[in-house]
Amino acid sequence: MIKQKGKLIGIGVGPGDSELLTVKAVKILEKVPVICSPKSSPEKESIALSIIKPILEERKEKNGGKVREEKARNSNFEESSLKDSIDNLKILEPIFPMTEDKKTLEKHWDDAADLIAEYLNKGNDVAFITLGDPSIYSTFSYVQKRLENSYEIQMVPGINSFTACASSIAKPLVEKDEILMIIPKIDNRLEKLLEEGNSFVLMKTSRNTEELEEIIHNQEGEKEITSVQNCTMENEKIIDGFPKNKPYLTTTLVKLKK
Amino acid sequence: MIKQKGKLIGIGVGPGDSELLTVKAVKILEKVPVICSPKSSPEKESIALSIIKPILEERKEKNGGKVREEKARNSNFEESSLKDSIDNLKILEPIFPMTEDKKTLEKHWDDAADLIAEYLNKGNDVAFITLGDPSIYSTFSYVQKRLENSYEIQMVPGINSFTACASSIAKPLVEKDEILMIIPKIDNRLEKLLEEGNSFVLMKTSRNTEELEEIIHNQEGEKEITSVQNCTMENEKIIDGFPKNKPYLTTTLVKLKK
Repeated sequence: MIKQKGKLIGIGVGPGDSELLTVKAVKILEKVPVICSPKSSPEKESIALSIIKPILEERKEKNGGKVREEKARNSNFEESSLKDSIDNLKILEPIFPMTEDKKTLEKHWDDAADLIAEYLNKGNDVAFITLGDPSIYSTFSYVQKRLENSYEIQMVPGINSFTACASSIAKPLVEKDEILMIIPKIDNRLEKLLEEGNSFVLMKTSRNTEELEEIIHNQEGEKEITSVQNCTMENEKIIDGFPKNKPYLTTTLVKLKK
Repeated sequence: MIKQKGKLIGIGVGPGDSELLTVKAVKILEKVPVICSPKSSPEKESIALSIIKPILEERKEKNGGKVREEKARNSNFEESSLKDSIDNLKILEPIFPMTEDKKTLEKHWDDAADLIAEYLNKGNDVAFITLGDPSIYSTFSYVQKRLENSYEIQMVPGINSFTACASSIAKPLVEKDEILMIIPKIDNRLEKLLEEGNSFVLMKTSRNTEELEEIIHNQEGEKEITSVQNCTMENEKIIDGFPKNKPYLTTTLVKLKK
């Protein structure tokens, strides 16, 4: 009898608040045997993994006395246990370095895909968790491409950072016939886009230059510019205009009244 | 002693599948005393209300024997009970007609805002449920504008139709530096936008003309066009290209390779 292969599930875990996980995501993460959560360096904890921590804690709890005993012996348990196999759960944390060097990146994605494939071949489903949504600027896409011809792929949508930002400032992003543009990195298309659109999301504001800010400030007419840092997290910060300090998770919403 | 006013909570209930509600939305809907769910006509049930039905059913169950007794007497109970006051829950269903007549619309929104304000003034929180996300082309915006100066507003983001569509077809919407444009209604800006963007979401394809389809088909280079109808619902349908029949909930995803 041929063993059935596992399925790769790309799960969006939302912007930061664990309560913004969908019921569907929670149900899968409560049961799936393997969770893959890439991180940018060996030292840093992945944000996606920290979002699903409450679910992992509950899985540990259900594992009963054995875990609690171990806890008493090891004060570092909170951290290290997540990386161990608990309650028949295996957590994979491949490194996806923050580099623009294509060759290095390709190598890391290949390795991650190989690691995931090992478990899929054993018949285990693997949940690949990703900040926000798995279809929007997600590292999941790179792994998906390498595996979609050989394995079943499922995707579970997640709350986007930009709608979460709009909710945090309690303002609509777009109404009626307004056009919304999601812009990950500013290039020479920006000026034309500003002419045609109404509402703009500048993802990862930290990568933007003063030039960009000048272009936007120079637009005619009424403008609303708001930045949100670490949206829905404990250290969330809402800033009028562009921020001076730009942590990694900064999003700027721009509305032009026309 | 002055009674504290209630808070208006705009809740995105996602695209259709009840499991795509966030944990946060579920927790609020399990307890909130008033739920407002606008509908387009007195006869049609609102899709947003049908999405949260499992939560309403559970609230009924918890209400104990009284409900079950009533169920035995009344075969129409499933439907009618949702509109009644159960388990201290009041469901408001103001009519927001599908018309482009501004004056008629304003009147209906004013009435809905007045109705909601009645409950807010009594100190009750009101959850206004909306398909998808409350910041993106949502009827919530109209009510929010009328009430935000007098009452506290909270928004809970929901899963967008377009990321849910991408998950249904298991393909990324945007990667790397690609620009995503969300276009609610086609006008003369489209041709310019197609030049500048990479990935396009055409909301409510049903409103589009053959002219639009021609413009897109005439674009040079490789194109991927996929439409999703009734995304994540039981009658979901995925169509290559533009569909011939266009029910209300049709979204078309267009990718241009440049």
